[in-house]
Amino acid sequence: MKLVPLGDRVVLKQLEAEQVTKSGIVLPSGAKEKPQEAEVIAVGPGGIVDGKEVAMEVKVGDKVIYSKYAGTEVKLENNDYIIVKQNDILAVVE
Amino acid sequence: MKLVPLGDRVVLKQLEAEQVTKSGIVLPSGAKEKPQEAEVIAVGPGGIVDGKEVAMEVKVGDKVIYSKYAGTEVKLENNDYIIVKQNDILAVVE
Amino acid sequence: MKLVPLGDRVVLKQLEAEQVTKSGIVLPSGAKEKPQEAEVIAVGPGGIVDGKEVAMEVKVGDKVIYSKYAGTEVKLENNDYIIVKQNDILAVVE
Amino acid sequence: MKLVPLGDRVVLKQLEAEQVTKSGIVLPSGAKEKPQEAEVIAVGPGGIVDGKEVAMEVKVGDKVIYSKYAGTEVKLENNDYIIVKQNDILAVVE
Amino acid sequence: MKLVPLGDRVVLKQLEAEQVTKSGIVLPSGAKEKPQEAEVIAVGPGGIVDGKEVAMEVKVGDKVIYSKYAGTEVKLENNDYIIVKQNDILAVVE
Amino acid sequence: MKLVPLGDRVVLKQLEAEQVTKSGIVLPSGAKEKPQEAEVIAVGPGGIVDGKEVAMEVKVGDKVIYSKYAGTEVKLENNDYIIVKQNDILAVVE
Amino acid sequence: MKLVPLGDRVVLKQLEAEQVTKSGIVLPSGAKEKPQEAEVIAVGPGGIVDGKEVAMEVKVGDKVIYSKYAGTEVKLENNDYIIVKQNDILAVVE
Repeated sequence: MKLVPLGDRVVLKQLEAEQVTKSGIVLPSGAKEKPQEAEVIAVGPGGIVDGKEVAMEVKVGDKVIYSKYAGTEVKLENNDYIIVKQNDILAVVE
Repeated sequence: MKLVPLGDRVVLKQLEAEQVTKSGIVLPSGAKEKPQEAEVIAVGPGGIVDGKEVAMEVKVGDKVIYSKYAGTEVKLENNDYIIVKQNDILAVVE
Repeated sequence: MKLVPLGDRVVLKQLEAEQVTKSGIVLPSGAKEKPQEAEVIAVGPGGIVDGKEVAMEVKVGDKVIYSKYAGTEVKLENNDYIIVKQNDILAVVE
Repeated sequence: MKLVPLGDRVVLKQLEAEQVTKSGIVLPSGAKEKPQEAEVIAVGPGGIVDGKEVAMEVKVGDKVIYSKYAGTEVKLENNDYIIVKQNDILAVVE
Repeated sequence: MKLVPLGDRVVLKQLEAEQVTKSGIVLPSGAKEKPQEAEVIAVGPGGIVDGKEVAMEVKVGDKVIYSKYAGTEVKLENNDYIIVKQNDILAVVE
Repeated sequence: MKLVPLGDRVVLKQLEAEQVTKSGIVLPSGAKEKPQEAEVIAVGPGGIVDGKEVAMEVKVGDKVIYSKYAGTEVKLENNDYIIVKQNDILAVVE
Repeated sequence: MKLVPLGDRVVLKQLEAEQVTKSGIVLPSGAKEKPQEAEVIAVGPGGIVDGKEVAMEVKVGDKVIYSKYAGTEVKLENNDYIIVKQNDILAVVE
């Protein structure tokens, strides 16, 4: 059972606290719009979204920083996922 | 008697609690925008909606995760339905 | 004396309580955006509305579910009507 | 002395209370967006308004139902007028 | 020293109270968006404004009714002017 | 060291109080959107800004009236500047 | 490990207080939208962003004034970065 995102949506899995420590990302505690490090699990097909052509720039396995502001949390078979629009992904961590 | 959605609207039927348990979706209780698992019952024709071309990507029978935020609940012949725009469907569960 | 709607507007007449019962539509009492079953009385010509081409998809006599949120109530010769934009009609009941 | 509206604006003159009674329009007292019956006094040229082509659909002498929400009241030589955009006119009463 | 408006802006000079009385314009005291009679002093060149082609429809010397809502008051060499966008001019008084 | 504005931005230097007195500009004290007289110090290249073609209409040395509402104050080497978008400049004073 | 911004995003590193003093930038303490001097660390590829063509105008190493209003703070390997859209960069300091 897996999540297949529509349009320009991307399924993310938040990195564990240990991983976060290892990668050195520290989230400012009081930030209104909390950035997050996560791994890309699934990528929508892109195409025409809300009347605009969207090309998908991230791929499965990418580590990304995203803005949690517009994401939606989903739990599937005891795993927690976040579904965001690609536009809510700020950068890839290489 | 059935609901025939207009434009890019989709008629959903929320999955029963048992099904929800079986599929493992657990909704965060305090979430502002509650994600929901549902089955697609009817799909609008798409086409030009609000001046933008919309292609319908879901089909009858799909299990989907949707954002309840903009949906409208309707009860028809003792069945409860949700009518959402396709854009409020986040992902298909396969 | 009759109402001739402009642009993408549609004149609706709410179905009586008995009809509502017969068709089985029950409106959730506390819903913020109350869905309603109504009959289409008159349909505007469509065309370019707010800079966008709109094709009218409903016809006189259709039973429809609409979102009351943006509608305007009008009483003409002791009949109550609702004038909505077609976009506020969610589905046709067949 | 007369008002010549610009763009897609329309000058309306509200029908007197007697006329309102005769035509049977009764306004719901507590409505947030009060519909009104009025006569069209002058019609702007239409054309490109806010970057969009607007064709004028009403003509001088039409009885119309309009949404008072965005109108502006003007008194000229002891006559009261309302200036609205055509988009605020919901229907013509024939 | 004179004001040369940019884009679709128009410089207006409010008519004196006497003139207002003579022309019979009376402003509703509690109106949220106060209409005003004024004379056009200078007209911007129009052209592409905010990505949209704007043709200037008023000319110097026109008496106009404008919506004060978005205007900006300026005092230059002891004269008071109002700078508005042409879109805030509702009608010309002829 | 100098400021080179991006896109349709313009760097302004507010005129001194004396200059303001000399030119006769008096700002209404309680105005929500305070107009200001300033000199143009640097002009961005224009071009495509937020998807729209913008041609720069002001030039270095122009005296302008601007709306302070959206401007950003910057102090560089003990000089105070205001950075505004050209759209926030209402008129040139000639 | 480095941040690779998506679309029209830019990774900035705020200049140290000493540098700020040296360059003479003083931020108004109570400003709602705080301008900031920073160095450009990484620049996204631009291209079609939200349906609009965006050309990147800044390059790595530029000193820029940006509006902090929409930026997101990220800490990576004990360095603090700000990720902004290019549109939030007001000017380059040369």
